[in-house]
Amino acid sequence: MEKVPYTLGGVVDELLKSYEQYPAICKIGVNSQPNRDTIIEILKKLQIVMFPGYFGATKPKEDTIAYYIGSVLEEVNYHLRKQIGKALQHSGLDETAARGRAATLTEQFMRRLPRVREYLDTDVEAAFDGDPAAYSMDEIILCYPGLYAIMVSRIAHELFVLDVPLIPRIMTEYAHTITGVDIHPGATIGKYFFIDHGTGIVIGETTRIGDHVKIYQGVTLGAMSTKGGQSLNHAKRHPTVENDVTIYSGASILGGATVIGEGVVVGSNAFITQSIPSKTKVSIKNPELQMKSNGKNEPEKREFEQEEFWDYQI
Amino acid sequence: MEKVPYTLGGVVDELLKSYEQYPAICKIGVNSQPNRDTIIEILKKLQIVMFPGYFGATKPKEDTIAYYIGSVLEEVNYHLRKQIGKALQHSGLDETAARGRAATLTEQFMRRLPRVREYLDTDVEAAFDGDPAAYSMDEIILCYPGLYAIMVSRIAHELFVLDVPLIPRIMTEYAHTITGVDIHPGATIGKYFFIDHGTGIVIGETTRIGDHVKIYQGVTLGAMSTKGGQSLNHAKRHPTVENDVTIYSGASILGGATVIGEGVVVGSNAFITQSIPSKTKVSIKNPELQMKSNGKNEPEKREFEQEEFWDYQI
Amino acid sequence: MEKVPYTLGGVVDELLKSYEQYPAICKIGVNSQPNRDTIIEILKKLQIVMFPGYFGATKPKEDTIAYYIGSVLEEVNYHLRKQIGKALQHSGLDETAARGRAATLTEQFMRRLPRVREYLDTDVEAAFDGDPAAYSMDEIILCYPGLYAIMVSRIAHELFVLDVPLIPRIMTEYAHTITGVDIHPGATIGKYFFIDHGTGIVIGETTRIGDHVKIYQGVTLGAMSTKGGQSLNHAKRHPTVENDVTIYSGASILGGATVIGEGVVVGSNAFITQSIPSKTKVSIKNPELQMKSNGKNEPEKREFEQEEFWDYQI
Repeated sequence: MEKVPYTLGGVVDELLKSYEQYPAICKIGVNSQPNRDTIIEILKKLQIVMFPGYFGATKPKEDTIAYYIGSVLEEVNYHLRKQIGKALQHSGLDETAARGRAATLTEQFMRRLPRVREYLDTDVEAAFDGDPAAYSMDEIILCYPGLYAIMVSRIAHELFVLDVPLIPRIMTEYAHTITGVDIHPGATIGKYFFIDHGTGIVIGETTRIGDHVKIYQGVTLGAMSTKGGQSLNHAKRHPTVENDVTIYSGASILGGATVIGEGVVVGSNAFITQSIPSKTKVSIKNPELQMKSNGKNEPEKREFEQEEFWDYQI
Repeated sequence: MEKVPYTLGGVVDELLKSYEQYPAICKIGVNSQPNRDTIIEILKKLQIVMFPGYFGATKPKEDTIAYYIGSVLEEVNYHLRKQIGKALQHSGLDETAARGRAATLTEQFMRRLPRVREYLDTDVEAAFDGDPAAYSMDEIILCYPGLYAIMVSRIAHELFVLDVPLIPRIMTEYAHTITGVDIHPGATIGKYFFIDHGTGIVIGETTRIGDHVKIYQGVTLGAMSTKGGQSLNHAKRHPTVENDVTIYSGASILGGATVIGEGVVVGSNAFITQSIPSKTKVSIKNPELQMKSNGKNEPEKREFEQEEFWDYQI
Repeated sequence: MEKVPYTLGGVVDELLKSYEQYPAICKIGVNSQPNRDTIIEILKKLQIVMFPGYFGATKPKEDTIAYYIGSVLEEVNYHLRKQIGKALQHSGLDETAARGRAATLTEQFMRRLPRVREYLDTDVEAAFDGDPAAYSMDEIILCYPGLYAIMVSRIAHELFVLDVPLIPRIMTEYAHTITGVDIHPGATIGKYFFIDHGTGIVIGETTRIGDHVKIYQGVTLGAMSTKGGQSLNHAKRHPTVENDVTIYSGASILGGATVIGEGVVVGSNAFITQSIPSKTKVSIKNPELQMKSNGKNEPEKREFEQEEFWDYQI
């Protein structure tokens, strides 16, 4: 490395001063920080466990699958326990207490994995049944970002309900960067959940979603206002979506008291802040199109009939 | 690794039971699964071949370029043939038949690469001409996610029309996670295609796009309804977009019978389910703004003139 | 590697011809190309410098932090200087001139890092104060894609104002692929900037943003038209957003003469092409919902009161 032509030392000194002046965004001399890269690695191993044979370098055989999954799980167990321990220390527990609690929480989490897998099986089925562009279930498992986002959110949710700090959100925000689907780990999601395309979807912390729900790209299940900021920390701020609901692209459904009843279909770009009774189709009137041809300034106005609005999707 | 404090074995047993109970999301004892990581590696090598000197560690020189590209192509050839073979076995062919067919299909694909490159040259030109924020063509090649999504979709489309299973979709869904642009490999796209910003764009399987088309972020070229699910598998469900069309951000154009005629300009957020005649500018009336100042409840209503709606973009 | 069963050579020859025929998308025999991977590596190191102890494998201690940051900075200095030199050669300077200028620009950039960090401290604070879903500031630093996009855009902007070619855009487009947030490095952004969820946000090159501004997913700060293409290269094409402005999801604000005054709140999905006076709340009338229950064709029309539109968010 060549000698630098100016005093880099001066910049280092200024930065060290900055670390003293703005300590809230430093972790110097702190050993209890969870490691984002390790957590991403844990997600990779859990994906192997959930869909054995689809991911990773090893092709499992019938006679070796137990050893293979056992060894992958042992790694998950070891690293997750360490990371949970750090996260607990980070949130105030002393080292011994954090270790003990981490062992318990990791065990509880691991015991829930078969149930997570049971739910994922229904999600794959829902995606295949709902999407004419899917040529096989393998295609969904190997490539659909929506399924990946659902998998990570189901895993992270199990840690969230065990009150594990930090790690669930690191997991779901990682999935958000990969898929464009932003599901808070606090959200509760039923079986047969299908996300198509997915980019731009936001599902807030206190959302509750039933079984057989389909959501398309750009849908927001959000809060009405955050003027209260941190004071709203534990309130139910996001909607409830009951069974068999379909929400088409770009719709926003807001508010903790908003309930979307069973069997409701929400049309594209609807903006909903009140409850919708079950078995209702709700849509907006398509915005009137204005047409101008060949420079003539005689807009041909067209309105579509209401019937046409049902069941748009992408 | 420390000894685990509970019987991890119990969890492994439960998971093995789960593999038997939900076999649709397992591939145990199956050797014909394409490998997503290898396919991503193939895309990296093809990017080097398409834009020599821009990507990869090697800086090619005039007197070595033939060897360099030859060796990169040989790697592509080898791995792609293996992956296609696995994908064909996966979809039912026996090993010998799959090998033979894979060799033929790989050869046919490789022969199309110069034509893919010819199209990409027009795409780069269209991006440079259309975007005042682009300082050079190199900037477009090195950084524009839209160009990357187009490159992957052009490559994947060649495999799709050769009826290669699974691999084309793995390619485009990978590009989707990288760019937020979701183009199905079935879509047919003409020359001089420009995607600006791109996040949230969805282009469905049976879409047909002409030459000199510009599309902005959040645009959907989609289907009307998927109530039919898998039964719609081969229908034309997505629109046709003719030459010289511009579609501004957030517009949705839906339906297999919908044709957007030559030279049409579609304004931001338009929602279109019927054909638009050529040389038409179509837009929605801008939603009326409601203003409230200093707590006074007297909304000042404003409407924009239609003229103002043309040619919005970002 | 098996022998290939057809003349791969033929394909190589065709590609070599293609390189001659379409030279605009080749860099053969050119040694002045910045390397995207190196630039991404520089961003990783700068993230360590900005938030010491949060990222990277090393846990810094009080007594070693100076050496640690010094060595990370030295690597940044070395590689950035080389990359800037290549970018300058690439844009026409000869090698000696490029080297000299690169050394000067790198030094100027490095001296600005403490100020970048000062701004990032305000961004983390704004995110924590504004988001009830954030459990701690560490959560924001470790996982929020919005903060990552802001960090990269602040770093890239410093290089942009120093007239460094190519590299700033490579940085922000990389952040775009990771976060779905597309901020041009030319945009000027004040303190306490908060991006929530972020996917689909576009902020154009000549945008100016004041202090304490909050932006939600899907917001566009864009240009009105690009019919002028490259001729618009230096015009102010994007809006000005003054202090204390909140812009809810899906809103579009367009045009270089558009000024969003101090304290303005812009409601979801508003489409704005004119200036808004300060202290105003501006929203669109919620699109009327059409309801259809149990097959009966009697849509129950509902309109929401204007008051309900303020302060929607997700």
